[in-house]
Amino acid sequence: MVYKEKTANFLRKANVSVGDLISASKENVNYEGMLLDRSGNSDDEHIVLKLDNGYNIGVGIDSCEIRLIEKGKPPKIEYSKIDIGKDPNKKDILIASTGGTVSSIIDYKTGAVHPALSANDLLKAYPQLLDLANIDVKEIYSILSENMKVEYWVNIAKSIRSEIESGVDGVVVAHGTDTMHYSSAALSFILETPVPIVFTGAQKSSDRPSSDSFINLMNSIGAASSDIAEVTVCMHDTLDDSYCSLHRGTKVRKMHTSRRDTFRSINNEPLANLKDGHISSINTNNYIKRNDRELNLRSSMEPKVAIVKSFPGITDDVINLYIDNNYKGLLIEGTGLGHLPNCILKTITRGIEEGMVIAMSSQCIYGRVNMNIYSTGRELLNAGIISCEDMTPETAYVKLSWALGQSENLEEVKNIMATNIVGELNNKTSLKHFLN
Amino acid sequence: MVYKEKTANFLRKANVSVGDLISASKENVNYEGMLLDRSGNSDDEHIVLKLDNGYNIGVGIDSCEIRLIEKGKPPKIEYSKIDIGKDPNKKDILIASTGGTVSSIIDYKTGAVHPALSANDLLKAYPQLLDLANIDVKEIYSILSENMKVEYWVNIAKSIRSEIESGVDGVVVAHGTDTMHYSSAALSFILETPVPIVFTGAQKSSDRPSSDSFINLMNSIGAASSDIAEVTVCMHDTLDDSYCSLHRGTKVRKMHTSRRDTFRSINNEPLANLKDGHISSINTNNYIKRNDRELNLRSSMEPKVAIVKSFPGITDDVINLYIDNNYKGLLIEGTGLGHLPNCILKTITRGIEEGMVIAMSSQCIYGRVNMNIYSTGRELLNAGIISCEDMTPETAYVKLSWALGQSENLEEVKNIMATNIVGELNNKTSLKHFLN
Repeated sequence: MVYKEKTANFLRKANVSVGDLISASKENVNYEGMLLDRSGNSDDEHIVLKLDNGYNIGVGIDSCEIRLIEKGKPPKIEYSKIDIGKDPNKKDILIASTGGTVSSIIDYKTGAVHPALSANDLLKAYPQLLDLANIDVKEIYSILSENMKVEYWVNIAKSIRSEIESGVDGVVVAHGTDTMHYSSAALSFILETPVPIVFTGAQKSSDRPSSDSFINLMNSIGAASSDIAEVTVCMHDTLDDSYCSLHRGTKVRKMHTSRRDTFRSINNEPLANLKDGHISSINTNNYIKRNDRELNLRSSMEPKVAIVKSFPGITDDVINLYIDNNYKGLLIEGTGLGHLPNCILKTITRGIEEGMVIAMSSQCIYGRVNMNIYSTGRELLNAGIISCEDMTPETAYVKLSWALGQSENLEEVKNIMATNIVGELNNKTSLKHFLN
Repeated sequence: MVYKEKTANFLRKANVSVGDLISASKENVNYEGMLLDRSGNSDDEHIVLKLDNGYNIGVGIDSCEIRLIEKGKPPKIEYSKIDIGKDPNKKDILIASTGGTVSSIIDYKTGAVHPALSANDLLKAYPQLLDLANIDVKEIYSILSENMKVEYWVNIAKSIRSEIESGVDGVVVAHGTDTMHYSSAALSFILETPVPIVFTGAQKSSDRPSSDSFINLMNSIGAASSDIAEVTVCMHDTLDDSYCSLHRGTKVRKMHTSRRDTFRSINNEPLANLKDGHISSINTNNYIKRNDRELNLRSSMEPKVAIVKSFPGITDDVINLYIDNNYKGLLIEGTGLGHLPNCILKTITRGIEEGMVIAMSSQCIYGRVNMNIYSTGRELLNAGIISCEDMTPETAYVKLSWALGQSENLEEVKNIMATNIVGELNNKTSLKHFLN
């Protein structure tokens, strides 16, 4: 058992061991499941249960009560200690994990690589992966992706930078799917990279029969070994396991709560498709190639930026709140081509006059903001609102946070927002990239 | 010229006439275009210009300065005064307009039928339409659709109710596209109807060469004459003019800023397709048929309901704002299956404890909220948050406003939210309805 001091004591007091069926109650929520072991480098705050539905959850022991329901046998997970050694003919790929639960290669929700994951473990679980590359693993965070924060992006970027400096040829970032597209956009802006950085995750954890984690991981390793040196997202393209798509990290969005092909390129086509761990087709030559640019961290991010979605009952209360709380940026999800009700125009103008940068995206998701056509749009432009053109609201939000971190000169910030930095903004929109 | 007293004086003083090229300056925005005539039943506050880009805009004369650039000839628009009479073999269809500019059958943005529109005008413009039905026209509102408000929905519903009581066999609601799906959802809940109510609009105004307005209007009249007695949206299904789709008013969303096939059924297939003003195929028998239900207005709506979208930098400030401003309902756009960062869970709980109804939808748009899988979701459910299942965020927002209007008993409101009322909530989601 690798539970540490505090959690080990907690379990000992309740007289439960790994493999037992137990109940854990916390804040009026009750969980029943098998107590799982944790890996050596886990925190000392959580125990992990395997629920009946097949999912694993971590439960913080703080104000948690547990009791034994039925004694069980500890699960046998024995990893051999063989040192595989490096194959000089293969690329060195790092799998960086941003979340952590046990018993999953990639967990559905956290994007966590099994925390105990080593090259040896991988060999045991999915030996095919080691045919593709020399693989090493690093755990950066251990959080649910809905808890991802602006400052964590910076730490992830720094951590990956040091690995690239140490010579890895590509990085796979295992990440929960909920906010993966926010994070892939953030890393795109923060880290100029000479090697591929590929985000991946899974919609079903790897201990479930129909998990998508292996295919996604295998193809992500393929993408990380490729010549496409951008921050990308590699996930299933179809409901079956036939192939994955590689999406530009700034032009992708989670579009379905549960389908494995949930990630879709928005206003773009995917950069490439992958099959069996290799690129099967490339859709464009318009990408940054390996070693085309120097490694460079541009890590300053402004956290006081918010998203406000327009809706028929909106009032200016919410705009006033952010102005009065000294927010530096506001990303509006307007309607249609980028519109807001007249009743909040005056407050938008006040925000801009007081130095807030306000940018307009569209809640349509697909297409391009165009505020030149109607009088309300023109009045917004005249007030100084910025058009986010064909960026998704999520990418525009991340970019605004980043742009405000790069300069204190508001004109410069506006200029950054209007300029394509890492493929997030197409100067021309083809109408054909819709619902693909 | 049909400009009335105030606007006519205003124009006379500047020595400009209909047909002249003029400039109009207002609030630092300058417009140049040809002065258009207005219809007899217009307000006395605006003048209308045709801009170079082909669009018409109304400019309020209050604090507006105009000057003549070049004299022109007034456009010749003469409508004959022939009374067509009713054909007893055809259905009586009302076209109810919610916006108003001149020179458009349906204006791109406002969804306005030409305010001077009469059966005679229609005959002149699109005589084919009168082959389909006996058509009458009514102007309910004259607003840009981004300015649509909760209380306007109620007035539109009341106005349509009285027309149905007077015997119309179907209603086409001409509406701006920006918020059409909010309005179609609202009317679905507010008005139980024994006849079809069909929302339509256009992405390009009818005076532009490639306008979609005629095809949409023709097929909407077909839908309003059909047996599908629900509130629906009828718009182009493809980029060409081949056919329109008829979407359930609660299961549709504007998904592209500018494509004519922007409206897509979400988690559903369209009810039917239409071609040449007639239903060409019906995709389901699961719809309410003509005269299946009595006319019934359920018009109480709670305006103090807001949409809050989750994002990585969100803090509980915005939740606190709505609680402290005594909002009755909050529609959350969570990530993935319906999640929020832990840091705002406590404030969500406070809101619910203080009597706010908080409901969870997903910013993925497609799919279904499921808060049972992960601990954060369970904690939210335990705190009393409601799952919006497979409703779009926009429909869930409208429904929450309506449900809070129907009952002051919070348990009843929650029950309404969890119950399918007008096809807005499927008990089973088929994975196949994705990006169709």
